[in-house]
Amino acid sequence: MVTDNKRAPWINWVLFFGTMLIVFLLGLLASSITQRKAESEYVYKPKVSLSEYEPRNVLWGENFPREYQSYLQTADTSFRSKYNGSAMIDELKEDPRLVILWAGYAFSKDYSSSRGHYYAIHDIRYTLRTGTPQGPNDGPQPATCWTCKGPDVPRLMEKMGVKDFYNGKWAARGSEVVNYIGCADCHDPKTMDLRITRPALIEAFQSMGKDISKASHQEMRSLVCAQCHVEYYFNKHRPDAPDVSYLTFPWKYGTTVEDALKYYEEEKYSDFTHQMSKTPLLKAQHPDYELFLTGIHADRGVACADCHMPYIKEGGQKFTSHKITSPLSNISGTCQVCHRESEEVLRENVYERQEKVKEIRDKAEIELVKAHSEAKVAWEAGASEKEMEPALHHIRVAQWYWDYIGASHGASFHSPIEVSRIIGNSIIESEEARIILARVLAGKGKNTELLYPDIVSKEKAQKNIGLSMDQLQKEKKEWIKAILPEWDKQAWDREEKMVPQLPKD
Amino acid sequence: MVTDNKRAPWINWVLFFGTMLIVFLLGLLASSITQRKAESEYVYKPKVSLSEYEPRNVLWGENFPREYQSYLQTADTSFRSKYNGSAMIDELKEDPRLVILWAGYAFSKDYSSSRGHYYAIHDIRYTLRTGTPQGPNDGPQPATCWTCKGPDVPRLMEKMGVKDFYNGKWAARGSEVVNYIGCADCHDPKTMDLRITRPALIEAFQSMGKDISKASHQEMRSLVCAQCHVEYYFNKHRPDAPDVSYLTFPWKYGTTVEDALKYYEEEKYSDFTHQMSKTPLLKAQHPDYELFLTGIHADRGVACADCHMPYIKEGGQKFTSHKITSPLSNISGTCQVCHRESEEVLRENVYERQEKVKEIRDKAEIELVKAHSEAKVAWEAGASEKEMEPALHHIRVAQWYWDYIGASHGASFHSPIEVSRIIGNSIIESEEARIILARVLAGKGKNTELLYPDIVSKEKAQKNIGLSMDQLQKEKKEWIKAILPEWDKQAWDREEKMVPQLPKD
Repeated sequence: MVTDNKRAPWINWVLFFGTMLIVFLLGLLASSITQRKAESEYVYKPKVSLSEYEPRNVLWGENFPREYQSYLQTADTSFRSKYNGSAMIDELKEDPRLVILWAGYAFSKDYSSSRGHYYAIHDIRYTLRTGTPQGPNDGPQPATCWTCKGPDVPRLMEKMGVKDFYNGKWAARGSEVVNYIGCADCHDPKTMDLRITRPALIEAFQSMGKDISKASHQEMRSLVCAQCHVEYYFNKHRPDAPDVSYLTFPWKYGTTVEDALKYYEEEKYSDFTHQMSKTPLLKAQHPDYELFLTGIHADRGVACADCHMPYIKEGGQKFTSHKITSPLSNISGTCQVCHRESEEVLRENVYERQEKVKEIRDKAEIELVKAHSEAKVAWEAGASEKEMEPALHHIRVAQWYWDYIGASHGASFHSPIEVSRIIGNSIIESEEARIILARVLAGKGKNTELLYPDIVSKEKAQKNIGLSMDQLQKEKKEWIKAILPEWDKQAWDREEKMVPQLPKD
Repeated sequence: MVTDNKRAPWINWVLFFGTMLIVFLLGLLASSITQRKAESEYVYKPKVSLSEYEPRNVLWGENFPREYQSYLQTADTSFRSKYNGSAMIDELKEDPRLVILWAGYAFSKDYSSSRGHYYAIHDIRYTLRTGTPQGPNDGPQPATCWTCKGPDVPRLMEKMGVKDFYNGKWAARGSEVVNYIGCADCHDPKTMDLRITRPALIEAFQSMGKDISKASHQEMRSLVCAQCHVEYYFNKHRPDAPDVSYLTFPWKYGTTVEDALKYYEEEKYSDFTHQMSKTPLLKAQHPDYELFLTGIHADRGVACADCHMPYIKEGGQKFTSHKITSPLSNISGTCQVCHRESEEVLRENVYERQEKVKEIRDKAEIELVKAHSEAKVAWEAGASEKEMEPALHHIRVAQWYWDYIGASHGASFHSPIEVSRIIGNSIIESEEARIILARVLAGKGKNTELLYPDIVSKEKAQKNIGLSMDQLQKEKKEWIKAILPEWDKQAWDREEKMVPQLPKD
């Protein structure tokens, strides 16, 4: 300051105009910030007030248009990778061995790979596995089968009570569960916080002595998926709900494949008895979350949503994509957030893992097909239950290990080392079964290599196990024509025409 | 400049002293740089002139004292990890099944895990596998067995020619190969560039139609290791070297386990005939480089030296540690160069891979032991060669796959998915063998589960296959006392007392 009056007058002008310029630029910046803020306030200003279990996704979409728009894109089945894609693949056609492995169970009739959440309601209606129930108390499947299909489920559970929701037949909820997997399944409508709406997961945590309400936000970004993407079964022997197909995860001893087996053995549980080998078998569901937990991405704190629901941008707005799909369809937005390799390299890294796992999984499958076939011939040759029991137990364990891998989504990428370990164990168990069977067969005068059933195609395999597919398909077609419009009409009226229009074939 | 004469005089003084201070600090910096440079010039100023294949590591140490000092530390056996360490472990004692699997081959007498390069000469002299040759033309092993043991080998190859080096018995080079694995094995003494001194690797590249001289520096940081850490065999049918045990890598069709098998099948090669099952078997060596190539670290361009020879610092000097050892002994200097997780997490990540692979590898081993035992009983029961041939072929393949994994160093970490795939295939092959054998046995009236040999300890297993271990050990002890001092004296005189002093037991 002491030198101020010695300064040349033009310097004061420079300072003056310089200050003016800086103030002007600050003004521009403030305006830009305000604009962005206004934009986000506009987007997130609730237009509609939502009830606790509002099942109509379109109403949530009023408040959250970007998330909703991306969510609608789960209808897009155009993505193809080497082994997966977003389209439905007829797995029985791809791999007719499956028909034999599930002989005596509904999966041998119809089993396709999953596609986007958009098809959740459509595909459970159209699959041969749900049969052709002629009334609300008819059909092969229990009401529990709806549990993962959409936000009508928490709505109904709230209204009816959990036990009553699980009680009865699948057809009884046909007109009620009509909104496919959506907003209310995972979000609180007031805070938009993630929430668990399915009691089975909460109870599974309790069975392990854990409290799911203590989960962190990052954990919740996987746990909302774990409501459905897990191994489960229907427990019909709960003292508080006898004869009810009560949805239960076999997690009492933990979440590994051995933990679940230990639980099922203790419960003396089996899903079906194999038509050929008479083995009491477990059908694995999709233990995606459990296998994910054993892999490196879970170890590094990555959540399902990090890769399957990446952040995307529209204009100035960053939001979570609700087009839940394969990360390979958007490598730059998923893998490359952490990994610096090229898309091509990362894609090949995934394929290589899948390929190596598939190689030994396929071989494990072939051994299992042989084991079932050999057991069938042994029974026919007059083997006793006592002779067969040790072999059947090995088959049961071998098939459990194999199916746990086969039924899971993405496990050969999520956790290829654990998956390979499990397949190795499956092969060991098949081997033990087949050696016992070779001895039993030799004892019955059948000491040569067997001719295995002709299963070069899905059709031949299904014929081999005595399925009349034409008849089943005809009946289903008629049922679709007769029953579905009824269900849809009831839903249409109840939900003020705000139910989704699903594909008609 | 126009305002200079208007400035207060004290400002000029501030500028003057400020400039003085900056110039002074610059001077300090320049001095520091010069000092550092001088230091490194001092370190790398050659004190000794080295010949092309100078085998005496201590002479190289005159020129490169830091590298040499770290190299000497390969004598340190104190590091322990969960499954490995730098000390030698008696693997037959740890896992007596190995005695059965190698029955009829020298490995059933003595097989220990490898330890530091420092012990290369000592351990090949002391192992029972090299026997007790009484003269230069006596003993079970060929001269070729020395090929990986140290820099005397390129010296001798230069002097004798490669074919003549491989020709003759192991004992014939006992006084010649006395310097353990060292400088000249991998370095050019003029430029210190990495170089390949072993013709087998150069020829293996040629057999694949590749030119190893085109390898990059980063590739060379693995290839110098691949001179020895590979699968190999002794080809005795080279037209240009008949009856010579010519060191050859089975890489003609590539470097996978299947590529090598294809090569050996084509060559109708086997290392030994199994004492119990009479199977013509392959003994895998240590396909470390080949399996490493199939893993993620190789995929990411990491070289052996990056993890096994990390950069370390002494004072102002950064240099490559030549204490070649497990990266787990220095996680902060190895893994953490790329990975940001804690040492504890990274260590557990390694152990988890090793544990899962070990689980199914152990089971594969058990199946193989059973297969050999069942084949023995089948022969005894009068099975014909025609009946046995298909089973023996499956055993051959199963054991090849299993041994390829078991013999490799670090593969369950380097490439756990490939390793699991190979073990899965081993189990499949054992399974096929055992089912055929069950049928053959049943045909000979032996249709019950067999009693397998008692192999709860190394001693029992060795007794089972008829080895007189006390006698073998006694003979070796006497041989060590009688022969080794002779070899050492000849070397001592030839090399002007500059041969390493190795442990005496």
